[in-house]
Amino acid sequence: MAARTLRIGLIPGDGIGKEVIPAGRRLLEALPASLGLKFEFVDLEAGWETFQQQGVALPDKTVTVLKNECDGALFGAVSSPTSAVKGYSSPIVALRKRLDLYANVRPVKTVVSAPKPIDMVIVRENTEDLYVKEETTRDTPEGKVAEAIKRISQRASGRIANIAGEIALRRQKIRATGSPSIHRGPLVTITHKSNVLSQTDGLFRSTAREVLTASPFRDAEVAVEEQIVDSMVYKLFRQPEAYDVIVAPNLYGDILSDGAAALVGSLGLVPSANVGEDFAIGEPCHGSAPDIQGQGISNPIATLRSAALMLEFLNEEAAAAKIYEAVDGNLSEGKFLSPDLGGTAKTEEVLQDVLCRL
Amino acid sequence: MAARTLRIGLIPGDGIGKEVIPAGRRLLEALPASLGLKFEFVDLEAGWETFQQQGVALPDKTVTVLKNECDGALFGAVSSPTSAVKGYSSPIVALRKRLDLYANVRPVKTVVSAPKPIDMVIVRENTEDLYVKEETTRDTPEGKVAEAIKRISQRASGRIANIAGEIALRRQKIRATGSPSIHRGPLVTITHKSNVLSQTDGLFRSTAREVLTASPFRDAEVAVEEQIVDSMVYKLFRQPEAYDVIVAPNLYGDILSDGAAALVGSLGLVPSANVGEDFAIGEPCHGSAPDIQGQGISNPIATLRSAALMLEFLNEEAAAAKIYEAVDGNLSEGKFLSPDLGGTAKTEEVLQDVLCRL
Ligand SMILES: CC(C)[C@H](C(=O)O)[C@@H](O)C(=O)O
Ligand SMILES: CC(C)[C@H](C(=O)O)[C@@H](O)C(=O)O
Repeated sequence: MAARTLRIGLIPGDGIGKEVIPAGRRLLEALPASLGLKFEFVDLEAGWETFQQQGVALPDKTVTVLKNECDGALFGAVSSPTSAVKGYSSPIVALRKRLDLYANVRPVKTVVSAPKPIDMVIVRENTEDLYVKEETTRDTPEGKVAEAIKRISQRASGRIANIAGEIALRRQKIRATGSPSIHRGPLVTITHKSNVLSQTDGLFRSTAREVLTASPFRDAEVAVEEQIVDSMVYKLFRQPEAYDVIVAPNLYGDILSDGAAALVGSLGLVPSANVGEDFAIGEPCHGSAPDIQGQGISNPIATLRSAALMLEFLNEEAAAAKIYEAVDGNLSEGKFLSPDLGGTAKTEEVLQDVLCRL
Repeated sequence: MAARTLRIGLIPGDGIGKEVIPAGRRLLEALPASLGLKFEFVDLEAGWETFQQQGVALPDKTVTVLKNECDGALFGAVSSPTSAVKGYSSPIVALRKRLDLYANVRPVKTVVSAPKPIDMVIVRENTEDLYVKEETTRDTPEGKVAEAIKRISQRASGRIANIAGEIALRRQKIRATGSPSIHRGPLVTITHKSNVLSQTDGLFRSTAREVLTASPFRDAEVAVEEQIVDSMVYKLFRQPEAYDVIVAPNLYGDILSDGAAALVGSLGLVPSANVGEDFAIGEPCHGSAPDIQGQGISNPIATLRSAALMLEFLNEEAAAAKIYEAVDGNLSEGKFLSPDLGGTAKTEEVLQDVLCRL
């Protein structure tokens, strides 16, 4: 069998992004040859440091190379300026839009037996909502008044619901192979605030419901539920074991996935993928953590899992499964854990332990 | 000393609102005469049932009577229709705006010794943000597109920051009397998402920071911190003991207060007050809970605490303290707890136990 070559853009960004993205690269390079995968890497720039050097946080070149030359990418993290800086705006938000990576997929799962086992995926719409960033400010006799647009479209709501349903089905298929699971059947929970925002969130809700209660999801008996976002956060903490796939507009998804991350002990464990029609960017959920940068103690797990997630969406499920297994092995043995998990292992030691398990 | 007479509007609303608001009334009636307080009550209507009967969820009469005849009110909970109904919109959201009750104050506190002791107040802006409910929908070749306005003003951000600071100072004063506390000094944490919404949330952030770092708060050494909302939810679950007063725009405040409620075990414990220049409405944070309505098992504690909170903002701190003490006594003894807390006590039994402790 001829090996498939995947060309991966590497965008470390700022802070510990520069420590975890190289770990992700080494993981991909270390995958067993039997998987039939080869990798080529392209180093690309984005972030706050890039902005300070070049006056733009996301150079056009980064976008062009990703679009024209790459199959996928790994993105580290970026620092934000401490107050608004003219011309600066988040490169990852821009990248999601420019590559039309319409889904942000964030699996949150306990490995080591926890008081409450958790195994959920948050599927966040990635292109609209308040993230369209259309803002204006005006002066009034009573001071400044600023407004932002929250935009929700039927199209974006439909496609995010669709991928959420597909993910629920895929998870169900994996469970059907006999993998131990806390879930009985596929469940998608639609999150919104349509009791206040009847048109915008109302449209998200009705569109998602329509998609998820029709073929092929109805035939596969995907259960569909709803939670108002405030109540969703409450439930997330009280009964996290009850949730399988949660689908949400951009901002609620952002908030919910940090909440879910808190449940598994550390943001350093939680991966994400920004997924489009035929491109995926793996991205750890944590930030650039300037406080621990340079000490070699950042947790690479979120990035390693993000690399696996990227591979999943590039249809390399076997390679992804291999990585998940190696990471789960590292965590359940618990010998090489980074300080955010209460351990003393360095980034390098965690990585080595995972590589040995591939 | 002549007794002060307070005229209180009672708006039970729907579902268990009809069980807990009468408990609130009986609590106020049972306060010891030595406090020098008399109460008169006016029964008022609002809610989903009201909408079904009268075609409006918040009758003008309710607003007029509150405005012209009352000093404060207790509001129960309202049910929402399961899908958008023409002409229906949440009466509590409308009431907050029409009475200009610009602050929603939600204290969340553990009484019984918990693994993580918590003692925080969420101060939520109550009049603007996405709650202005200015929405439009248009048809496009790609389907419907809906938009909502998120409005943030300097005026509303300034006054909410100011009351947050005042609450921090008041809490510090109570601690100074030697009450046991997990906090060292007054701290206000400003929550926002200005890394994405630089104008709207940026305005909230800079205005709040300006107010809270000036007199009188600077002189009283109120510490001021910031958290991006997603990270705030994460921290809320990881280090809830670190927070004292959290101030947030309307929607984030809504989400955060449900999250905080999850930390103390039940929404049935968490009170709120909607506070304006010279009016306060006490309102339990829980919903109308139609699933348990009519069984006499709803937890009245959130309403009893909301009555106390209302009294605090009507400058009756001694009466409020009396109620908090009685409720804390009930909870720490743990003999009469409602089912949401793992007990078997009926609403009536919980109420009686609290009344005996006044
Ligand atoms: C850094 C920030 C703009 C970003 C977001 O809000 O999407 C982050 O919180 C995330 O979740 O990836
Ligand atoms: C019922 C709903 C409109 C309301 C809100 O969003 O404010 C509720 O969640 C609350 O927190 O009081």
